[in-house]
Amino acid sequence: MKVAIAQSNPTIGDINGNIDKMIGMIDKSRAAGAELVVFPEMATIGYPPKDLLLNSDFIEALNDLTERLLLPVSHDIGILFGTVTYDNISGMLCNSALLAYNGDIISRQDKSLLPTYDVFDEARYFIPADTRQCMQFGDLKLGVSICEDIWNDKDFWDRPRYPLDVIAELALQQPDMFINISASPYHYGKFALRSDMIKNIAKKYHTPIIYANQVGANDELIFDGGSFCIDALGNRALQAKVFDEDIITIDSQKLMQGTYSSYDPNEDIAWMHDALVLGIRDYFHKTGCKKTVVALSGGIDSAVVCALAVDALGKRNVLGLSMPSRYSSTGSRDDAYVLAKNLDIEFRTYPIEDVFEACLRTFNGDSPPKGDLAEENIQARIRGNFIMFIANRENRMALTTGNKSELAVGYCTLYGDMCGALAPISDVPKTMVYELARYINREYEIIPESTIAKAPSAELRPDQKDEDSLPPYSVLDPILHAYIEENKSFAQIVAMGYEPDLVKDIIHKVDRAEFKRRQAAPGLKVTTKAFGIGRRMPIAQRWTGSII
Amino acid sequence: MKVAIAQSNPTIGDINGNIDKMIGMIDKSRAAGAELVVFPEMATIGYPPKDLLLNSDFIEALNDLTERLLLPVSHDIGILFGTVTYDNISGMLCNSALLAYNGDIISRQDKSLLPTYDVFDEARYFIPADTRQCMQFGDLKLGVSICEDIWNDKDFWDRPRYPLDVIAELALQQPDMFINISASPYHYGKFALRSDMIKNIAKKYHTPIIYANQVGANDELIFDGGSFCIDALGNRALQAKVFDEDIITIDSQKLMQGTYSSYDPNEDIAWMHDALVLGIRDYFHKTGCKKTVVALSGGIDSAVVCALAVDALGKRNVLGLSMPSRYSSTGSRDDAYVLAKNLDIEFRTYPIEDVFEACLRTFNGDSPPKGDLAEENIQARIRGNFIMFIANRENRMALTTGNKSELAVGYCTLYGDMCGALAPISDVPKTMVYELARYINREYEIIPESTIAKAPSAELRPDQKDEDSLPPYSVLDPILHAYIEENKSFAQIVAMGYEPDLVKDIIHKVDRAEFKRRQAAPGLKVTTKAFGIGRRMPIAQRWTGSII
Repeated sequence: MKVAIAQSNPTIGDINGNIDKMIGMIDKSRAAGAELVVFPEMATIGYPPKDLLLNSDFIEALNDLTERLLLPVSHDIGILFGTVTYDNISGMLCNSALLAYNGDIISRQDKSLLPTYDVFDEARYFIPADTRQCMQFGDLKLGVSICEDIWNDKDFWDRPRYPLDVIAELALQQPDMFINISASPYHYGKFALRSDMIKNIAKKYHTPIIYANQVGANDELIFDGGSFCIDALGNRALQAKVFDEDIITIDSQKLMQGTYSSYDPNEDIAWMHDALVLGIRDYFHKTGCKKTVVALSGGIDSAVVCALAVDALGKRNVLGLSMPSRYSSTGSRDDAYVLAKNLDIEFRTYPIEDVFEACLRTFNGDSPPKGDLAEENIQARIRGNFIMFIANRENRMALTTGNKSELAVGYCTLYGDMCGALAPISDVPKTMVYELARYINREYEIIPESTIAKAPSAELRPDQKDEDSLPPYSVLDPILHAYIEENKSFAQIVAMGYEPDLVKDIIHKVDRAEFKRRQAAPGLKVTTKAFGIGRRMPIAQRWTGSII
Repeated sequence: MKVAIAQSNPTIGDINGNIDKMIGMIDKSRAAGAELVVFPEMATIGYPPKDLLLNSDFIEALNDLTERLLLPVSHDIGILFGTVTYDNISGMLCNSALLAYNGDIISRQDKSLLPTYDVFDEARYFIPADTRQCMQFGDLKLGVSICEDIWNDKDFWDRPRYPLDVIAELALQQPDMFINISASPYHYGKFALRSDMIKNIAKKYHTPIIYANQVGANDELIFDGGSFCIDALGNRALQAKVFDEDIITIDSQKLMQGTYSSYDPNEDIAWMHDALVLGIRDYFHKTGCKKTVVALSGGIDSAVVCALAVDALGKRNVLGLSMPSRYSSTGSRDDAYVLAKNLDIEFRTYPIEDVFEACLRTFNGDSPPKGDLAEENIQARIRGNFIMFIANRENRMALTTGNKSELAVGYCTLYGDMCGALAPISDVPKTMVYELARYINREYEIIPESTIAKAPSAELRPDQKDEDSLPPYSVLDPILHAYIEENKSFAQIVAMGYEPDLVKDIIHKVDRAEFKRRQAAPGLKVTTKAFGIGRRMPIAQRWTGSII
């Protein structure tokens, strides 16, 4: 039997549009000879739909519109797809895989393991499956599971998260193959982890696995797609594209015989680049906005964001703004200009000096500037106002340019450089921003070398450098990684070889900056732990570490 | 036996400080003759601690510091308190009630029902109890439960949320009394609901109930306290203060005999007022900030927020700012001045005209103003910059003044009037803001009558009125209430008697304004459904209602 994986990019809530897309992919799969088409988790509504699931109109519309996937669409072809179903008895929702064929739903398997960690809130909406049964389709017995269900193998993880091993239970029924439908968010390095885990399961049960993952970005979350098939020996049989829609078809007989062979993709910085480009593009397209505006300081962060925006939206849709002040160096202004020229985008200059002067007069009268935090921040905030003025006037959405290292320690101005609809690199540590810059310059110089070479500076006072307030990023980033992503304790971080006082200071800065992050723009998640919905910290709190 | 309810106001994460407070309350209870002291849920760390619970240093410190509640503190007195325990076998956390006595933890009962709706995320952190056993203390058998455990009575609710009825299970063991320790967030109207429910349970099982609730505010959530005892006939035996710490003691024998009698408190607008005052006070005190700054437009929202701030922080800590523009009416300026005079607070005027002029010159050159959205918004944003300038310079935290009706339909400017550390009335509908104003003026005129009487206006263009863009608030608010708080469908709202086109327009406005709310300051929750952590909506989505 020919099986197609239809790796679709749904838009949250656009039920009709998503089903149109599915029907198009079913037609293509049928034309390619497929008898069964497999869609990702929640292909009908996009993942994660969040509290739209609590809207009764939404669930009713979903029920009605899902009928569109029955006749004539499912005539002579099986459609296995993720959706949400309403359980009339309990009045609760289930995260379900349905198998449609010849006008009927012939099988249903609900998700058993509902993640509630990091960015996941599934216990908020769903009840878990109470049974797990293989689905029969033609002469194939399919062990169908949904996303998290497959992430709990007792032999792969030191400490499985749930008592139940879904795949082990399905394996007892001796399926011909496993199918996992997923909406598995991307982070840098996840592809290999996911692959290794699934290969291990295939080998362990000597059963092939079809893995169908959502592609596309929804708010903070980027889904890489990269669906694949693994044969019973744990070898990759087929590999779909990453960061793009795709349909791949496989012959189930040949998959079971293990006669396919595909390449093992190698994740590198290009993946993070492509993830961010997809994240920007989908955020704009799915909100219905075409054009952006980016403040170009001449520094590396804004240069990288601007280059990503050009890849995501096209150079005609990107406007670069230079907003120099008395503290902006000539080098920075030139770098911003050269970057815009290299990217061939529109570039305008709006000096903030007149407005800054007017602000100083308002608050200082005839006295000279005090050089305090208020005067530093208001420069960033005037720029925030300017960029929003242009965004409002020209119907653009602004991108913020702050990186994860800054956001972590609060080295950023709320309502200033934090103004914008989306924060593309707010989960990219500064040291990795440099890697992205080098990748962007891989063929020719787009980001001026002087931007990459110079010491980072906010340029809010004379001769200011980031390192006046922070350790070098090569020291800061590993400490932040240990604290935020690896959740290491103070003692564990000190044991990595860092000065206790430095570690204390950094932890303290991270904890104290929570109020800024609470009002930050949504940021694209590309690490195992991003600020935002996956990291929920109180603000009015006095935990200072047992040691601080 | 004399039992004390120690209704404490813990600070999130301040384990040592919270335990100091508990020890002080234990001493007082002992002095009053108590043999058992009952503290609320998570009294040691404050509720909700959120992702602090994922910090291993934090859990370790909690374990260590909880020892302080053993000897000598628990000598000859029982201490029943809520805390978090670490289960060594599963490696998971439990939300626990511990009973300490004479240096040992003599009983433990974990929470069985872990809420995951609205503002709650307990499945993110905890595993549920697998058994429920009454605790013996002296000659009393106590049926101890934790918060949500008591909110699932099969006879009280049409549709109980969980299959398990914790109280029914405990009742089978025939306890002398039930004790429920809670951190039950306040909303307007909740006290009667909670009381009725608990009275019903007492009557149903003919068993008295001691209900110990947290008081104080933590970020968005306000806890009213208002702990009480209900006798076996369902009558209120004892009532603690609301919105303040309190210790009340009861004789268990007399409670079981039903010889106490206390008043049934009547919730009115004063409660909402006091809740908001507590919310502001705790947010400031728990973050370590004393002083605030409030933008006074002359309108009712800023007047109410300013009056609340004076009650919360004291008049010396409140600065009122008038920031008039060319569109500010003389009446508005006068009203702002009179309000500040009535409140006896510091008042300063910083006209935005010079900075606004400089902005217009920057973007329009010598052309006249276009009167577009960009020019409207930048006025609000200049004010945002000004208020943050003062906040930064004088170490104040700004309060935002927007109400729930505005925030719902997006009638507010991101980075403009939305600038601030806390949004005290962002969950108060405009019609209720008027009720608060009348309550504030109950004894003499604090808020000028002209502020209350005039038509609401943002004053961002000549002769602008809210009703140019919105229906009257008396129409808007019930529709918003139905959509947001009652989660009613479009058809259900139309069936209430509103024009379909109007309902469509309002729903559409609410859905489209999500991007603004995502970057809003934390707001104090006082209704059943506030924007913020309890309402998690996607931004890049295309659900427009099945009918729109």
